[in-house]
Amino acid sequence: MLSKKEIKDIQSLGHKKYREELGLFIAEGVKNVSELLKEQNASIKAIYAIETWINENRHLYPQTVEISEIELERISQLKEPNKVVAVLHQFTVKEPASEGISIYLDRIQDPGNFGTIIRIADWFNIKNVVCSAGCADLYNPKVVQSTMASIARVNIYYDLEGKWLAKQSAKIYAAVLDGKPIYSLQKIKEGILLIGNESKGISEELLQMNHEKITIPRLGHAESLNAAVATGIILSHLIKSNEL
Amino acid sequence: MLSKKEIKDIQSLGHKKYREELGLFIAEGVKNVSELLKEQNASIKAIYAIETWINENRHLYPQTVEISEIELERISQLKEPNKVVAVLHQFTVKEPASEGISIYLDRIQDPGNFGTIIRIADWFNIKNVVCSAGCADLYNPKVVQSTMASIARVNIYYDLEGKWLAKQSAKIYAAVLDGKPIYSLQKIKEGILLIGNESKGISEELLQMNHEKITIPRLGHAESLNAAVATGIILSHLIKSNEL
Repeated sequence: MLSKKEIKDIQSLGHKKYREELGLFIAEGVKNVSELLKEQNASIKAIYAIETWINENRHLYPQTVEISEIELERISQLKEPNKVVAVLHQFTVKEPASEGISIYLDRIQDPGNFGTIIRIADWFNIKNVVCSAGCADLYNPKVVQSTMASIARVNIYYDLEGKWLAKQSAKIYAAVLDGKPIYSLQKIKEGILLIGNESKGISEELLQMNHEKITIPRLGHAESLNAAVATGIILSHLIKSNEL
Repeated sequence: MLSKKEIKDIQSLGHKKYREELGLFIAEGVKNVSELLKEQNASIKAIYAIETWINENRHLYPQTVEISEIELERISQLKEPNKVVAVLHQFTVKEPASEGISIYLDRIQDPGNFGTIIRIADWFNIKNVVCSAGCADLYNPKVVQSTMASIARVNIYYDLEGKWLAKQSAKIYAAVLDGKPIYSLQKIKEGILLIGNESKGISEELLQMNHEKITIPRLGHAESLNAAVATGIILSHLIKSNEL
């Protein structure tokens, strides 16, 4: 059984302020937690789970603390808690050199979009995602949830002073509405894909840098594409690798 | 000011049962509602909005009912209500002939994914999305929200008896993990893209039909891609049109 203080401590990780103070975050749900347990890079501080999870997964983390369904509901950030909550140490992040392909996110605010973009990066083996000030917090539980454990495999660097892009020599590909159609792009091995805010697009300041404008041609009438969907589509055309 | 009964009636549209009984649904927020107001196909029954929205948009719908912030909170399905709630008549749907490209969704359950796929269809000018039994309800407020008004421009047909696919002559492209890489696909003008459930994939029954398996090659380690992202990527490679 958890003490009131333990419950309060875990709940506090729903807030960015406490996450930063403690250097911790939470990940939830059967799939997310079991994927994270496989990652050497994921440093687990504690796992809390109900009996059915423990019965099947005890070997994965013998120190797991058994909790009741009611306790699970109290410590979970999800509407529908899913058996297990893990508390992890935040990752060590390094400022990336622009090698290979990387993604630069300009004020991506929706946690679901942000997490999904990290998962896309991982799918295409992109090692670095750089975030401008104004992006969602990586350790927001909804972001963590949407990454589906890719959070442990991608280096996510916050460029809070806005100086990273200017230092890079790699070509910048800016996703806009009136650029070169993605279908004409050559396959690339190096470059930075720049994705703008969900409603405002890429900031004027960033667009003053040398870049190539690229576009997913619109054939129908939707006003825009979801930012994560656009990221996935463009990456697939930049990478075009047939390896399976 | 709204009566208790009016508030209750609007709130009831959060539930599928009442939506079906009344043939109505709600759409919310400044962007969604202003986009829907431009669509001939969207038949509006009523709009409720706070003063600031009415001041700017009165000409769009003169019969708009002014409500208070508190009333808005009561009738809204959103965590953060956004000025305006519209009540609309459900769309007339026809069983689509398979002409051009269409999408078949097998038990897509996440409302955000479902709505985002409808928006992607609209972007690529796909006229028909067919849904198996077990897909989310089109008029779920979260689905409506994610479509960003594309709900009024795409014909969304529920194939509840599971007989539609077998009647089509167009080629079926099934999105799986071990198919032909999308980068080898020829551009097509006709075909049906089959997308499976978020965790279970495409059902055995559907996979017994004649189809071509296609895959977005995985270069990194993510276990899967989000269903909406995968739909967007695959469509872009099937369509490959440089028209802007």
